[in-house]
Amino acid sequence: MISTTPKGDRRYAILGTGALGGYYGACLQRVGLEVHFLLHRDYQHVREQGLVIESADGDFTLPVVNAYDDVAQMPACDVVIVALKTTQNHLLSDMLPPVVKDDGVVLVLQNGMGIEQEVAQLVGSKRVMGGLCFLCSNKVEPGHIHHLDYKQITLGEYLPDYQPGGLTQRMRQIADDFERASIPITLAEDLLLARWQKLVWNIPYNGLSVVLDATTNELMADNSTRSLVEQLMGEVLAGASATGRKISDRFIQTMLDYTEKMTPYRTSMKIDYDERRPLEVEAIVGNPLRVATAAGTDLPLISMLYRQLKFLDMQNRRFNTD
Amino acid sequence: MISTTPKGDRRYAILGTGALGGYYGACLQRVGLEVHFLLHRDYQHVREQGLVIESADGDFTLPVVNAYDDVAQMPACDVVIVALKTTQNHLLSDMLPPVVKDDGVVLVLQNGMGIEQEVAQLVGSKRVMGGLCFLCSNKVEPGHIHHLDYKQITLGEYLPDYQPGGLTQRMRQIADDFERASIPITLAEDLLLARWQKLVWNIPYNGLSVVLDATTNELMADNSTRSLVEQLMGEVLAGASATGRKISDRFIQTMLDYTEKMTPYRTSMKIDYDERRPLEVEAIVGNPLRVATAAGTDLPLISMLYRQLKFLDMQNRRFNTD
Repeated sequence: MISTTPKGDRRYAILGTGALGGYYGACLQRVGLEVHFLLHRDYQHVREQGLVIESADGDFTLPVVNAYDDVAQMPACDVVIVALKTTQNHLLSDMLPPVVKDDGVVLVLQNGMGIEQEVAQLVGSKRVMGGLCFLCSNKVEPGHIHHLDYKQITLGEYLPDYQPGGLTQRMRQIADDFERASIPITLAEDLLLARWQKLVWNIPYNGLSVVLDATTNELMADNSTRSLVEQLMGEVLAGASATGRKISDRFIQTMLDYTEKMTPYRTSMKIDYDERRPLEVEAIVGNPLRVATAAGTDLPLISMLYRQLKFLDMQNRRFNTD
Repeated sequence: MISTTPKGDRRYAILGTGALGGYYGACLQRVGLEVHFLLHRDYQHVREQGLVIESADGDFTLPVVNAYDDVAQMPACDVVIVALKTTQNHLLSDMLPPVVKDDGVVLVLQNGMGIEQEVAQLVGSKRVMGGLCFLCSNKVEPGHIHHLDYKQITLGEYLPDYQPGGLTQRMRQIADDFERASIPITLAEDLLLARWQKLVWNIPYNGLSVVLDATTNELMADNSTRSLVEQLMGEVLAGASATGRKISDRFIQTMLDYTEKMTPYRTSMKIDYDERRPLEVEAIVGNPLRVATAAGTDLPLISMLYRQLKFLDMQNRRFNTD
């Protein structure tokens, strides 16, 4: 059971008010929950003008939000959502401890693998959950988020070494809050399995979209890359299997079919690359690779993709003027 | 023994008068050999103005050359040098038979593997030799070739199924002609071994330079790509081994050291890609891969590189306006 505000609600913090954190946080505040937003570049703008959400589900504006540019000014919260890019996670050791209540929880809404372990070292493994977001959303201007499609989240408890955490009361409480905000939630009994499942999509499409300068539909329309996607997915299954998580081969076909039916899509890693931002290579590709290797399984194609991405990321950063 | 012209010399044909064929043909003509040049786009220009060679070894001009735009007009020759890009090899079935004398020889000066077999089907396996060129040369304008560095050629006899051909008299004759033109020649007893050795360099550097938009020195300066280059070289050795050709592991280190000392270099495949010309993917990557697979050896990283290159080649050709 997580403690509540005097009103009886849980208090939320959003660390990283971008396309993802800004969208979910705004949805929660809109239905009456208390939300505290940490910002960096957009702080002044959002403090003065609030957040604008443009969405297929209906546009809305929050003229006033609790905006901060310093975590020390934020109140301790019941649920602290980590919505930074993983490339910013070196900031978490300073950010997290003051903002999470003793009986609160940090909810990591980031891509990839291994982040919950890092967070557990900062706040203790009893205060960590993971979430996988299926969301198409962009920040188009400071404080202005364009939500395109999807929004569901899969939630899972983190236990040391990614033992399956089962279903808990606090998962259901958080799910209630999100569902009140019309965000569908799936509860996963095994967070690591859910993370591997998401990587079946994320590793091939994020990786190849950057290396080959391609959208998802271009990768699917060409026989060479379509079968390469399939081989990479097979290696993700081998990685999952090395850690005792079985994903059926049929899941690959499901992901291929799903991607073929999608609107042509520029992946998040490709957007980061095009915007000359650091790539989430370690979280999405490097960490799963190391987990599989530690479990005794080589993933040669993913390893090659990883080296290609590391090279492109380094070359790309040379031109970053931020 | 190859027949000779009335003067006692061998008569040469150059099929494809570009950076490579134009350079070697001009060097041979310059020392008095009879050379016949087949051209396409530059035909009118070269017929009227000849060839200009700009070279670190000394510039020279050939104001008059035997220029053709139709192979039917060419005399039958003793040595027919195939210097097209391999992507043009579908033209050889029409080109070759009339231009090579009954006791002449076709010398394939192309990159990659498997071309001699195709040529043998057109002119018989007794009239085929292969050569590997180590040449830095560009065509800068019609009929104007800029020779930058290197020029040596490794020559080998072709025998059915790439059995080692040993050293023959006609190899020595051709070597004499080239050496008269100051082009160093190495005679290889085993053409297939020589081709695999050259692929140790060509597959990783040509392939990765296109996929990662990189020069050789950029690939060497980054740890991720340097070790990927090394892994790809290891797979070329495995392919060679599958066909009974042993290349020592030390050869990899030699190639790495050699590349590190080279002037930063844009590979020929990268130049083709940047110029939106078709890539020599099949000759350089696809054929060796198929040879290894047929011999029972998988080369997973080269296979991934092949699929990536096929995709990029197809995307690139969409913009080709030639």
